[in-house]
Amino acid sequence: KPIELVVREYGIDSKAVIKLASNENPRGCSPKVIAAVKEEASKMNLYPDDSMYELKEALAKKYNVTESNIIIGAGSDQIISFSRNSKTNSKTKGLMAGITFAMYEIYALQTGATILKTPTAGHNLEEMLAIYKANDDISLIFLCLPNNPLGECLDTKDVYAFLDQIRPETLVVIDGAYQEYASYKDPAKKIIPSDIIAKYPNTLYSGTFSKAYGLGGMRCGYGIAQPEIIKALLKLRAPFNITNLTLKAAIVALSDDAFVSASVKENFEQMREYESFAKELGFKTIESYTNFIVLEFDASKNASMIAQKLMEKGIIVRNLGAYGMNAIRVTIGTPEQNKRFFECFKSLYM
Amino acid sequence: KPIELVVREYGIDSKAVIKLASNENPRGCSPKVIAAVKEEASKMNLYPDDSMYELKEALAKKYNVTESNIIIGAGSDQIISFSRNSKTNSKTKGLMAGITFAMYEIYALQTGATILKTPTAGHNLEEMLAIYKANDDISLIFLCLPNNPLGECLDTKDVYAFLDQIRPETLVVIDGAYQEYASYKDPAKKIIPSDIIAKYPNTLYSGTFSKAYGLGGMRCGYGIAQPEIIKALLKLRAPFNITNLTLKAAIVALSDDAFVSASVKENFEQMREYESFAKELGFKTIESYTNFIVLEFDASKNASMIAQKLMEKGIIVRNLGAYGMNAIRVTIGTPEQNKRFFECFKSLYM
Repeated sequence: KPIELVVREYGIDSKAVIKLASNENPRGCSPKVIAAVKEEASKMNLYPDDSMYELKEALAKKYNVTESNIIIGAGSDQIISFSRNSKTNSKTKGLMAGITFAMYEIYALQTGATILKTPTAGHNLEEMLAIYKANDDISLIFLCLPNNPLGECLDTKDVYAFLDQIRPETLVVIDGAYQEYASYKDPAKKIIPSDIIAKYPNTLYSGTFSKAYGLGGMRCGYGIAQPEIIKALLKLRAPFNITNLTLKAAIVALSDDAFVSASVKENFEQMREYESFAKELGFKTIESYTNFIVLEFDASKNASMIAQKLMEKGIIVRNLGAYGMNAIRVTIGTPEQNKRFFECFKSLYM
Repeated sequence: KPIELVVREYGIDSKAVIKLASNENPRGCSPKVIAAVKEEASKMNLYPDDSMYELKEALAKKYNVTESNIIIGAGSDQIISFSRNSKTNSKTKGLMAGITFAMYEIYALQTGATILKTPTAGHNLEEMLAIYKANDDISLIFLCLPNNPLGECLDTKDVYAFLDQIRPETLVVIDGAYQEYASYKDPAKKIIPSDIIAKYPNTLYSGTFSKAYGLGGMRCGYGIAQPEIIKALLKLRAPFNITNLTLKAAIVALSDDAFVSASVKENFEQMREYESFAKELGFKTIESYTNFIVLEFDASKNASMIAQKLMEKGIIVRNLGAYGMNAIRVTIGTPEQNKRFFECFKSLYM
């Protein structure tokens, strides 16, 4: 639920609402980006440069690829929807982890494709391979590295071993929305787009400005792949699919690595507070390589009820009941927000 | 071509480039919108309110409809792409004027649909009806009122008489991107969405913030139709399809009618300057109900060459050669921009 809705429904002052539900960056975005967007605001009448030359150039430099390897989307969601449109139809199947980013399924089902999932919740590559080998009509595989909404992450060497087994005509989407976090916590989880697309030309890496870069509201993501794949996806892109302020924000965001580093560092410092909190209260957690953490409850507690009670106090978290789990997903907030979460939770349950 | 590209290709100082090619509002947008967006810039990390409650409420009030009659798109382009996805497939046909907004055809062809066009360039309803009656597999009709890129506009009474002849299962998209201009110049051209969707439940009105509201760069449009149509289109909408700054910009833009009125008034004052210029130089024009004007040349001049030479001088206009016309489309600029266009054109050709 967005803050605006909680404010309306529960009559809570918008300043008192803390949203720890959508994995937004609690530190905001780079001050350089805010300054640049304010300056650009007088040009809102002008359509953006639809070639997105400057942004592609900056991304190409960052990732050591060429502009022909890059497509820009209105969030990495849109890259995923393009991949679905280019690779699935009513005669094909998509394959994904038992519990992973819900939009993979929603987008794939829109084309009439069948979706296959592993029995295990997170990414179990043995299960994935078994299903893949039993179904020669799987045209699209999604790997979420690290995985939303659970937080776990495969080692890159295991991903490569998996890709060795995949037919070249199957597109594998590597969703790296939280890669900035995973690669900081454990270099063994780092995906290098230029390397993976060179070794496996049937992969598409998707990245986003919505998480570590703190630009969730601006809707900007990108895909990195071999030029043939990019060309196919570009046919599905409508002109001007991002705003001119978004374009400016993304370009400037790429120039401020210090902001991203500080965000990621604080994230994992604060995550330790959540781990201590969970230990203290006896909740299970899933080791997280992202900017959120899953708290699992035993039968004495009900996650839906917990999420509801927190919301009434102005703290929005994600109930994972829809995934068949008695758990909540909490975005790591600022130190102050996390402190309020711990205090509020304890006042409700201790 | 965007300004950025002209700057790069011809080495012209970006401040000296005038873009009269994309029908952007040369006055910018409302100062109230700029102030609101600057204030909102610190929230770029937060996803927008995906219910878009406030914006729908403001549009519902403006158009005397309910929120269930409204869908928000990333530009009215996206509304058109939703209507194509919901109504055309490889077994159906779309119908449009001989020369009209190119995206209708591009979007419809993406579904494999066949596109039928009238022999006449602009909207000829007799021809449209004859084609419609001869093809019972037409599922979607586009009417651009007023028409881009020509500028002409049908009378609303004639549109109604046409709709009387259309089968209820055929969706008719009424593209009102330039309605603020047409309805000001001649009330007989005014389309009232609440009236047209009540009388013809198979119509979808699309409007935009990109033209008179001066927010082309922010990608925001809307569709107004009966709830059953809106529900079908909403299924095709991805979450967060506009940015949070766009949402704020559109809401505030609707509160500043004075900006729109002043823009439209100045537009038609300046259009008279173009009409005098065309008369003086012996060029034909098409009477325009929009914020642009078409200048047609005889065989002694070549529109592509004219557009190219103007571009080398830093003035970007739209060459209509791709439509089989020896003509250019010029966006009505500010008085200063128009003066420079006239002087530059004369220096090249007189």
